[in-house]
Amino acid sequence: MPGAEGCILAVGEALFETALLDKHVTKEEYERELPRLREALLEAQDRLADAGFSVVVVIAGAEGAGKGETVNTLLEWLDARGVEAHGLGLPTSEEAERPPLYRFWRRLPPHGAIGVFFGSWYTIPIVEHAFGKTTAAAFDRELDRIVDFERMLDHEDVLVLKLWFHVSKERQAKVFRKLAKNPDTAWRVTEKDWEYHETYDEFVTTSGRALRRTDSAHAPWHVIAAADRRHRQLAAGHLLLDALRKRLDEPPAESADKEPVPPPPEVNVINSIDLEASLSREDYALRLPAAQGRLGRLARRLTASDRAAVLVFEGSDAAGKGGCIRRVVQALDARFYRVVPIAAPNDEERVRPYLWRFWRRLPGRGQFALYDRSWYGRVLVERVEGFCPPEAWKRGFSEINAFEEQLVEAGILVFKFWLSISAEEQLRRFEERKQTGYKRYKLTEEDWRNREKWEAYESAACEMVRRTSTEIAPWTLVAAEDKLHARIHVLETLCEGLERVLGPDEPPEKGRKKKARE
Amino acid sequence: MPGAEGCILAVGEALFETALLDKHVTKEEYERELPRLREALLEAQDRLADAGFSVVVVIAGAEGAGKGETVNTLLEWLDARGVEAHGLGLPTSEEAERPPLYRFWRRLPPHGAIGVFFGSWYTIPIVEHAFGKTTAAAFDRELDRIVDFERMLDHEDVLVLKLWFHVSKERQAKVFRKLAKNPDTAWRVTEKDWEYHETYDEFVTTSGRALRRTDSAHAPWHVIAAADRRHRQLAAGHLLLDALRKRLDEPPAESADKEPVPPPPEVNVINSIDLEASLSREDYALRLPAAQGRLGRLARRLTASDRAAVLVFEGSDAAGKGGCIRRVVQALDARFYRVVPIAAPNDEERVRPYLWRFWRRLPGRGQFALYDRSWYGRVLVERVEGFCPPEAWKRGFSEINAFEEQLVEAGILVFKFWLSISAEEQLRRFEERKQTGYKRYKLTEEDWRNREKWEAYESAACEMVRRTSTEIAPWTLVAAEDKLHARIHVLETLCEGLERVLGPDEPPEKGRKKKARE
Repeated sequence: MPGAEGCILAVGEALFETALLDKHVTKEEYERELPRLREALLEAQDRLADAGFSVVVVIAGAEGAGKGETVNTLLEWLDARGVEAHGLGLPTSEEAERPPLYRFWRRLPPHGAIGVFFGSWYTIPIVEHAFGKTTAAAFDRELDRIVDFERMLDHEDVLVLKLWFHVSKERQAKVFRKLAKNPDTAWRVTEKDWEYHETYDEFVTTSGRALRRTDSAHAPWHVIAAADRRHRQLAAGHLLLDALRKRLDEPPAESADKEPVPPPPEVNVINSIDLEASLSREDYALRLPAAQGRLGRLARRLTASDRAAVLVFEGSDAAGKGGCIRRVVQALDARFYRVVPIAAPNDEERVRPYLWRFWRRLPGRGQFALYDRSWYGRVLVERVEGFCPPEAWKRGFSEINAFEEQLVEAGILVFKFWLSISAEEQLRRFEERKQTGYKRYKLTEEDWRNREKWEAYESAACEMVRRTSTEIAPWTLVAAEDKLHARIHVLETLCEGLERVLGPDEPPEKGRKKKARE
Repeated sequence: MPGAEGCILAVGEALFETALLDKHVTKEEYERELPRLREALLEAQDRLADAGFSVVVVIAGAEGAGKGETVNTLLEWLDARGVEAHGLGLPTSEEAERPPLYRFWRRLPPHGAIGVFFGSWYTIPIVEHAFGKTTAAAFDRELDRIVDFERMLDHEDVLVLKLWFHVSKERQAKVFRKLAKNPDTAWRVTEKDWEYHETYDEFVTTSGRALRRTDSAHAPWHVIAAADRRHRQLAAGHLLLDALRKRLDEPPAESADKEPVPPPPEVNVINSIDLEASLSREDYALRLPAAQGRLGRLARRLTASDRAAVLVFEGSDAAGKGGCIRRVVQALDARFYRVVPIAAPNDEERVRPYLWRFWRRLPGRGQFALYDRSWYGRVLVERVEGFCPPEAWKRGFSEINAFEEQLVEAGILVFKFWLSISAEEQLRRFEERKQTGYKRYKLTEEDWRNREKWEAYESAACEMVRRTSTEIAPWTLVAAEDKLHARIHVLETLCEGLERVLGPDEPPEKGRKKKARE
């Protein structure tokens, strides 16, 4: 019986050779096996619908291995209401403006559903390397990123099943020739396919490297001998069934209780901010328009470029995030920025990996996105309040760094501001808000509750800054006790950051008459 | 005091003339007024957050009227967490593949939030007509569509506020010259702007026509004399405030109780389907592969074209929708279709107009989308079960027709199948499902409950077919008592529909050897 055990192959030196063994399923075997398999798949899918995880199936392998046909068959076996196939060609313009993984993130299935990716995050890296367009080092880096991505998916309740369909070079040629001969199928063999055939050996070497490097405990590869149609279909079906059942039968992970947040470390970066820093009204009145003018000019240049900018504002309640954001957007054109306020996730967001709701709001080319609170909630409020298990916020640091690395590589400038005030100043501002008419709306019960955990938040913030202040996306610690000082600090930091990338600002006083950029 | 009453102008013959009256606000007036206005706006926005509606602000008007500056100011006054500005330039590739309103639908704010559209559904129609690219008839049609769209928004709890900023031709030239003279702002005046200036008169004529034709009780225009900066800002702020307050203070609409569904009409289209129609196993075995082969070839041609296809499957429970969908997708390439199962809306969907969840899933170019149940839920299950008030499903018919008209105009083929079975056959299938292993999962308590309302559903379906079977998107009534007949009927109808647009299928027997299309 051609069960799953017959097709899970060791991923190693002889990676594909084993898959070349002639695996054949007779018509009788197939017809005996099929009804059982289909019923079992539907039952597993029914259980999945109410389970707290989702499934991603990666379909990869050589041309001519019957991948498309197998996907069609799998979809036929499953209940269409809980599965979606994603056949991805070239990125759309909206996708091309964002990091490469964006197009996969936006298609991640919700809990209870299966997403079949035919054309996955492996496709472009493998093809480009096989055709010599990327170096081995760059290729390895892409593979490492994939490992991180899949590990994150696994942790975030996405079951990743990776199927590699393999055929020999001879078999591939045979398939192509047969298809080309029949006028009804000749269209399926394109020049590109023959080109792929010519580079079959490079493709196998490159793929082998990819499989070895990305074969992990949380997302192992399964290589399927694909020459025989009935074998490959049953094998794919059984692998999906086995993976589903295994996960469905797992006892729910025992999640550790909330961990107490340790006291702030001796070297307390948050505390070491000189909160005395301040600015006189007169200085502010001079520097605000200057900084906003400079930012406005630089922003226009950013908008005209390939780039985008992400601004993160964090800090305790009443630290002045909103005020800083307002002074920044005053300098920007409303068409090119978006303020993204982060509150509790909604129900589409709750059934997908944590970072999904940030990915879906990434700015396109030329745009600014200002996050009023951000993905750092994971290692701040979620940690302190115990909204997520300790293992989730612990891996949060590296997941966040990997996320920001992708932003930067896609040409997005990342600015992160931590606005720091003292507990006394916070209290003063809360009291003030109670008095001031149009600020009343900003004060909630929760704000008062959070105040009681001041030390825990401070400690979490210290660890956050220490572990996520990377060279490419450093934190800017802003003394916010004096609002005027904080605003100018934020504005000028932004200008400097933009100038580092776009070149120095050219104020009109100095400048010659410039031509319209739009 | 420059309140709203000073700037709401009659939309009529002397449309813009009135706006040219010199409206001027002194610095003192402005500074006295501003704090009150801002506080009132924040208070209204705070109440909005928990109200069951959303706000769309359309910013339109002449170049040089300070629209951008006003948007920036409005956003500065409001709480950034509940407002988003959408500055829309040219459509992205994903947008260009879908009906023109898609880009606005996807940006509709949820209940409790404000969306400012700077560049709206008026922009392209007005500019194209002013430059003589569209006929008066086509322009009027676009305007009528806008009226429908805004009426629907109003009914679906979206408050639409439309602001038109007006300046005279002389004033426009003055603004442009002043901006051009200052090296710091010269970039803002482009050749395009001077081109617009040259065609100022055509622009005013065209805009006047647009405003008159789209000025409706549910979405009136407000023309703002825009020459004076302080006046236009206060006017915009007051108009927003007044609109918000008016809506917030309205007593909740008394919604009529559920209406009993009348008995099926004498001419019962559903009942008149000849349920006896059937197909022998032998015929089926011959016609299925033929129809699927033909569909497969036509589908490839569709995929290679500019077009897309939307397939709607409706019918009572157990009518065989899933089985038909399966036979259709067997002929399609998994990369180019998507089955969209429609269940209850999720919480992002519940806070937006009813059709939003269908708009967001529209197929892109070359794609098939198969809806397993659809927007017709409004006039079927929602009507019969009383999930929406009677006035909602009553206007549903024309809203749906307008929606489908837009699909067809964007090159999307729309197929709608009503699968009809008798009550006895349904019972037989329910009993059978209880027996058959992998079909058990398809039977729920609800299915049994719905059976009790057989007549009401039949009656609702009759009215639906009668009122939404349009020339461009007719219903196909399928006798589904015999599953084999139903599947072939669906497949062959699809093929015929595709052929009407793509030209006849060229089966390989007849055909010369074709070149690869991909």
